[in-house]
Amino acid sequence: MVLLDGKKISNDIKNEIAEEVKKMKANGEKVPHLAAIIVGNDGASLTYVASKVRACERVGFDSTMVRLSNTTSQVELLDKIYELNEDPEIDGFIIQLPLPKQIDTQKVLLAVNPDKDVDGFHPMNFGRMALDMSTFIPATPFGILELLDRYGVDTQGKHTVVIGRSHIVGRPMSILMGRKGFPGNSTVTLTHSHTKNITQITSQADIIISALGVPNFLKAEMVKDDAVIIDVGITRVPDDSTEKGYRITGDVDFENVSKKASFITPVPGGVGPMTIAMLLKNTLLARERQMK
Amino acid sequence: MVLLDGKKISNDIKNEIAEEVKKMKANGEKVPHLAAIIVGNDGASLTYVASKVRACERVGFDSTMVRLSNTTSQVELLDKIYELNEDPEIDGFIIQLPLPKQIDTQKVLLAVNPDKDVDGFHPMNFGRMALDMSTFIPATPFGILELLDRYGVDTQGKHTVVIGRSHIVGRPMSILMGRKGFPGNSTVTLTHSHTKNITQITSQADIIISALGVPNFLKAEMVKDDAVIIDVGITRVPDDSTEKGYRITGDVDFENVSKKASFITPVPGGVGPMTIAMLLKNTLLARERQMK
Repeated sequence: MVLLDGKKISNDIKNEIAEEVKKMKANGEKVPHLAAIIVGNDGASLTYVASKVRACERVGFDSTMVRLSNTTSQVELLDKIYELNEDPEIDGFIIQLPLPKQIDTQKVLLAVNPDKDVDGFHPMNFGRMALDMSTFIPATPFGILELLDRYGVDTQGKHTVVIGRSHIVGRPMSILMGRKGFPGNSTVTLTHSHTKNITQITSQADIIISALGVPNFLKAEMVKDDAVIIDVGITRVPDDSTEKGYRITGDVDFENVSKKASFITPVPGGVGPMTIAMLLKNTLLARERQMK
Repeated sequence: MVLLDGKKISNDIKNEIAEEVKKMKANGEKVPHLAAIIVGNDGASLTYVASKVRACERVGFDSTMVRLSNTTSQVELLDKIYELNEDPEIDGFIIQLPLPKQIDTQKVLLAVNPDKDVDGFHPMNFGRMALDMSTFIPATPFGILELLDRYGVDTQGKHTVVIGRSHIVGRPMSILMGRKGFPGNSTVTLTHSHTKNITQITSQADIIISALGVPNFLKAEMVKDDAVIIDVGITRVPDDSTEKGYRITGDVDFENVSKKASFITPVPGGVGPMTIAMLLKNTLLARERQMK
C-alpha cells in the first residue's frame, strides 16, 4: 500500500510555483496576484481564506483580502466583483462560500470574469472543461488529478467510481476521469443519494473517489483488493481528546480499507492540502494567460 | 416490449409548437425565427439543413438559410456569425457541421451568442447544463430525455450505461441522466473506446444509451431482461436493394435485443426524428426568453 501524500506533493508544487515566481521577478515581470472576497464572520471561512493568503505569501504572490460585512447587499458585492474584474493588478480572485442568505450565490458566481475565475466555478469554465478545452479546473478535482499523475497511478481503461455529485467535486471529477488524456480515459460511474446497491458498484471499482461527507462510509467489504482510494471527505467529528474539540474525518474507514488498497489518501494530509496548491497553480496560469 | 416511437412523439411536439406559434400570431407577437449557416456543398449537410428549414415552415417559424461557399474564410464566417448575433430578427441559429478544413470549428462555435445557441454547443450553455442551470440542451440528448419522459420510463435510481463520449451525445447524455430531477437521478456509467469488459458493464444496465456509430454493436447477450434501449447510432450501410443504395442502421441488433427489452427505440424512427423537434423547441425557448 502506497500513501498518496498530499502534504508532501502540495509542498513540492508550492516550491515549483515559488521558483516560477522568482524567475518572473528576475525578468522584471509582474508576479501573480490573487484576491479573495469574504462576506461575514464565519469562523471556518475566515480560517480558509487566511490559509489561502498565507499560501500566496509563501510562494511570492501578491494577495488581497477583501472583507465585507455580514449585511453586505447583493448590489454591493456585485460592484466589488465588477471592480476586481476590471482591475489589471488582479490576475484571479475567489469568493469564499457560503455567502449570507440575502445574496444569490449563482448570480454572484456568474458575475466573475471567466478569465479571472481561478476557482473554476463559472459555467463558461465548467463547460470548457466538459468539452476538453483549456480552462481553470476546480481546485479539488485538479488536486486529485495531480496526485494521481505524480504517483503514476494508471487510470486508462480502469473503472472509476465517484461517490457524490456536488458541483465542486463529484460532478467535475466524473467528467475529468472520463476525458481523453492522462489522468483520464477511465470508465466512470457517478453515484449519489439515489444510487441503489452502492456496494455492488464500489466493489467493482479499480479507483474510488469518495466525496460524500459521511464519516467512515466506505468500508473494507465495499472495496476490492488493490483498489485506489481517494478520500475527499472532511467532516468535523466532535472529539474532546483534541485541543480544538473536534477531529477531521474522511469518508473512508482508513484503518481497514488501507489494508486492501494499492494507493490511498490519508485524511487529513491527502486531498485537503492539494486544494490550496492548485488554487495557486490556477492563479499562476491566469497570470501567464494574461501575459499572452 | 414497447417501441419508443420518435416519429409519433416528434410529430406531437411539432403540433404543440405549431399551436404555440398560432397563439403568438393571434397576440400580434413576433414568431420564432431560426437561421442556419451552411458552408460548402456536402450532400448530407444540405439534406439536414433543408429538413430543418421544412420543419420551421411546418410549425410556422420564420427561417433563414445562409449558404456560404466552400472557400469561405474563417473571418468571413465569423463576420456572418457576428451579424446574426446582433440581428434582433433572429432568435436562434445553428452552424451545420462539419465545416471545411480551413475553418477552426471550436473558434466558430465560441463566437455564437450563447443566448442564440439553440444547438447548445457553446461551453457557456454546456457548463450551465452540467451545473443544473436553465440552458439550451443539445437537441439529441434533449430528444432522448423527452422520449423517456413521454413514455413514463422510470430513471430514478436506475443504472444507466452510456456508450460513447462525444460532445454532442454521449458526454451530455451522461451528465443529464445523473442530474437531479426527472428524467435523471440515474446512477450513470460512461463507457468509451478505452473501456474494458463492456459486456460486463452493459449487462448490468437498466437503461442503455448507445451513441457509438458501429452497426449492430449491441447484441442480445450484452443486455439484461427488461432493459430500456436507446439507439442513437445512424450509420449508412451500403444496400443495393434500396433506392438510395444504402440503409440507415443503428448500434443495436434490434431483431434480437428487442425480444429482451422493455422499451426500445427503432432506427430509423426513434431518436433521429426527435432531434429536429427539439431544435424547434430550443428556438421557441430562445424566442420566449428574449421576450422576457
